[in-house]
Amino acid sequence: MKILGVDPGTRFVGFGLVRSKLGSLQSEDYGVVVAQGADLAHRLRSAFEGIGEVMDRHRPDCVSLEEVFFSKNVQTTVKLGEARGLVLVAACLRDIPVHEYSPASVKKAVVGSGQASKIQVQLMVRAVLRLSETPRPDHAADALALAICHAHRLGAVGALRVR
Amino acid sequence: MKILGVDPGTRFVGFGLVRSKLGSLQSEDYGVVVAQGADLAHRLRSAFEGIGEVMDRHRPDCVSLEEVFFSKNVQTTVKLGEARGLVLVAACLRDIPVHEYSPASVKKAVVGSGQASKIQVQLMVRAVLRLSETPRPDHAADALALAICHAHRLGAVGALRVR
Repeated sequence: MKILGVDPGTRFVGFGLVRSKLGSLQSEDYGVVVAQGADLAHRLRSAFEGIGEVMDRHRPDCVSLEEVFFSKNVQTTVKLGEARGLVLVAACLRDIPVHEYSPASVKKAVVGSGQASKIQVQLMVRAVLRLSETPRPDHAADALALAICHAHRLGAVGALRVR
Repeated sequence: MKILGVDPGTRFVGFGLVRSKLGSLQSEDYGVVVAQGADLAHRLRSAFEGIGEVMDRHRPDCVSLEEVFFSKNVQTTVKLGEARGLVLVAACLRDIPVHEYSPASVKKAVVGSGQASKIQVQLMVRAVLRLSETPRPDHAADALALAICHAHRLGAVGALRVR
């Protein structure tokens, strides 16, 4: 089972591919798509094509995406929606199902508490996936956390184990 | 000059095609794309493909889209962003430039006042385009108003004339 976590934005789209195997999880790839373009339409197209290439390269079984409940202001929320929309369409065009999780569910699945800090989540992502360093940038770490959350929800791993 | 106004939504995407010719405007087509699908991803894909077909059929010179400044709540704003994102990508994939206008600019261009009511805008859209009836549904009328606004901004028509 290959799960692609995606953290969408109109400048950077974080992604993290997690494979569950024999009850443990490993990361096969993570990073960010940097949206190129002088205006919003071109950046969105670039992000759409970039995340599409990631999907084509890894052929994940599903995508894990964050639900949006809160945002600072209307402009930020619209931009987040724009980026989310193109990730949803890119996945749907490839018949990849999308699962959505609230930020609190992700924290709970990864750290054990819905109130966990960003740093705690990143440290647990590193530990669970046995990475040699904390994944950077934040968008990639958030995407890996989303993928871990979905693996956990699926029961693809028992309890998350740090080794 | 053919201008496609688009009023995006995750259920209905309004569109209205306006052609400026010899200083007057006429509507060549208007309506709504009804997004089909059991879940959000499929509805967004359906809307993306549907508005893409409208663009391919009419080959507009540009798209006119509303800017978002205000919304009722986070969920509505995210959905609006999702729908906007796919319209922007659909246009960009076809090299169609997108112009954005605030709701007040649209009202001012069509009615003459940024405070105009929805009904006033619809009546003026009907009058300016010499339609035999008020365009329905609202999404289509809003899309026509956006196209008229851009024509006005371009100076493609002098003062908007009601005949």
